[in-house]
Amino acid sequence: MTYSYQELRKYILDVCKTMGCSVEDADITSDVLLAAELRNISSHGVSRLNDYVKLWKSGRINSKPNINIVHETLSTAVMDGDSGLGMVVGKSAMNIAISKAKTAGTGWVSVRNSNHFGIAGYYAMLAIEHDMIGIAMTNANPLVAPTFSVDRLLGTNPIAVAIPAGKYPPFVADFATTPIARGKLDLMHKKGEKAPIGYVQDKDGFPNTDPNILTQGGAIVPLGGDYLHGSHKGYCLASIVDIFSAIFSGANFGPFVPPSVAFLPVLDNQPGIGTGHFFGAMRIDAFQKADDFKAQMDLWIQTFKMAKTDSEHEKIIIPGEPEREWESIRMKEGIPVLDKVVDDLNQIADELKIKQL
Amino acid sequence: MTYSYQELRKYILDVCKTMGCSVEDADITSDVLLAAELRNISSHGVSRLNDYVKLWKSGRINSKPNINIVHETLSTAVMDGDSGLGMVVGKSAMNIAISKAKTAGTGWVSVRNSNHFGIAGYYAMLAIEHDMIGIAMTNANPLVAPTFSVDRLLGTNPIAVAIPAGKYPPFVADFATTPIARGKLDLMHKKGEKAPIGYVQDKDGFPNTDPNILTQGGAIVPLGGDYLHGSHKGYCLASIVDIFSAIFSGANFGPFVPPSVAFLPVLDNQPGIGTGHFFGAMRIDAFQKADDFKAQMDLWIQTFKMAKTDSEHEKIIIPGEPEREWESIRMKEGIPVLDKVVDDLNQIADELKIKQL
Repeated sequence: MTYSYQELRKYILDVCKTMGCSVEDADITSDVLLAAELRNISSHGVSRLNDYVKLWKSGRINSKPNINIVHETLSTAVMDGDSGLGMVVGKSAMNIAISKAKTAGTGWVSVRNSNHFGIAGYYAMLAIEHDMIGIAMTNANPLVAPTFSVDRLLGTNPIAVAIPAGKYPPFVADFATTPIARGKLDLMHKKGEKAPIGYVQDKDGFPNTDPNILTQGGAIVPLGGDYLHGSHKGYCLASIVDIFSAIFSGANFGPFVPPSVAFLPVLDNQPGIGTGHFFGAMRIDAFQKADDFKAQMDLWIQTFKMAKTDSEHEKIIIPGEPEREWESIRMKEGIPVLDKVVDDLNQIADELKIKQL
Repeated sequence: MTYSYQELRKYILDVCKTMGCSVEDADITSDVLLAAELRNISSHGVSRLNDYVKLWKSGRINSKPNINIVHETLSTAVMDGDSGLGMVVGKSAMNIAISKAKTAGTGWVSVRNSNHFGIAGYYAMLAIEHDMIGIAMTNANPLVAPTFSVDRLLGTNPIAVAIPAGKYPPFVADFATTPIARGKLDLMHKKGEKAPIGYVQDKDGFPNTDPNILTQGGAIVPLGGDYLHGSHKGYCLASIVDIFSAIFSGANFGPFVPPSVAFLPVLDNQPGIGTGHFFGAMRIDAFQKADDFKAQMDLWIQTFKMAKTDSEHEKIIIPGEPEREWESIRMKEGIPVLDKVVDDLNQIADELKIKQL
């Protein structure tokens, strides 16, 4: 089924309000989930509401969080998300990073006691309208084995960086620190496809092509694939995201990050509180005059756009470009939602006694 | 030939002094080059002196730079390296980042008009003794083709992050944003070996196994290898390093970064000044009490050390561990230097009228 932005938005707002969210928090949640849908990252879109509602019902998500700053300096803060929806906590923390950057040049916020926050790129892009570079990362439940290991110690820990330009749209990188995200493996499994070598390993650490291997003790490999091709670099990246998100803030790290689905239990004896995020905002005029910076970024983008492609491709991708193209298509033509997801969402609607999609 | 740390140090100091460096700047240069040798990254060690001397002779390296701050805020600075040796400029900039972090919680410095600065990890590690996380990155002469391109638009642009722990040594990640560094390709070529698929492409963008393909219009691929395995993520990473190092500072970006060897000319009509770097320092107690942070980092490291390995490996690598093991071996047993490199260094000695190695 295909729905308009407004149809999906109304549904999300209804769900959030029924959970007890404020109008403002419902708005934020809808914004973030629909940004994912519009940008063709539906693994982080409305389908997640199902888990959020279940986590709320089981008391693991607090729909009326008292998000507060635990510690701060001129350019830094640690925040406690009070088990709130990750979107609400995330936007609040990114706003603190932006506000710190206004006075100190840069702002850096590490967050504990949060939940799944959707697409990292959303928060990074909030900095753009303030003429700042935005950075967002989060740890996530463990699915990734470090190089040489068979244990799942890290999440797919994404990094997003949004950089303003002048006449061109901003540069927006937003990527998991693995060759692929979990959602794509699930899709391959549903379609009966094999995963390419270099995505996952089996429970003994050997390369495997079963996209469903995670249910049999397997793991996703870090970006790079194997040691010969630099998987230790992907392992470093995922570790840095984990440490900035959790050790700075007092959230759970690595294998202790709580699952973002309700059917998996939270581990006992956790070393931290909830899921962790890390946000940064850097005022471009803390380095260069904003106009000069943007003119150079335009030159950077133009240089890359004009580079010679290989024979199989017509253009070089500028990070953020494909997602922006999807946005304008989906605002016009609507947002496709899988039948299975529609069924789930309508079941939630019935349970919460709100209007079906 | 194998030399002691002191023998190599004396030689480097002699070269630097003859070039006109101050005692302090000679010390810094020797420190950084020998840190690379000790850590088994000899591609960034004494062999580089040959190029530095030639660049100095041709006026592209200034041995008496007036390194200055061009612009600053509480937590940021842009510095101009006045064409100095990259080591001297780099350490000076990292010290400013550390000093900003002392008052603002974090410090971020982007640098223009610098040169090849050796190993990024050296600068990141300077933060450790101040109970700070250190970050260092640099752009570099273009050898890497973005995903779908055949043009070399980016350097191997490394990222280093050093994180203090308590009873364990620090976590030190230091990696090029490509599957391998250029130095390793050269070594394969010298040994007559083939490069594995997934390192380089030919001039038309097809996978190739000739480690010498860079001399025939080929390129190194970004971390990830190909689009299917996430090379667009490696391309994003290298781009972010380039933008932070060059667009923030006014250095040359991407394809315009000047070569770090004297036999290749500097391009006309450059959009910036020299090579760019980016440094960061984050006080750990700007987020958590330092002791609590270190105790959690110890737990992080212990968790990863104790993880189950695959059948082919005995331990999981903690980033920085292999390099530290090399350091203690080479301090005891000496530093091996290739005959070809010794010949080059002795030729420099004769030209500069100093004592041979």
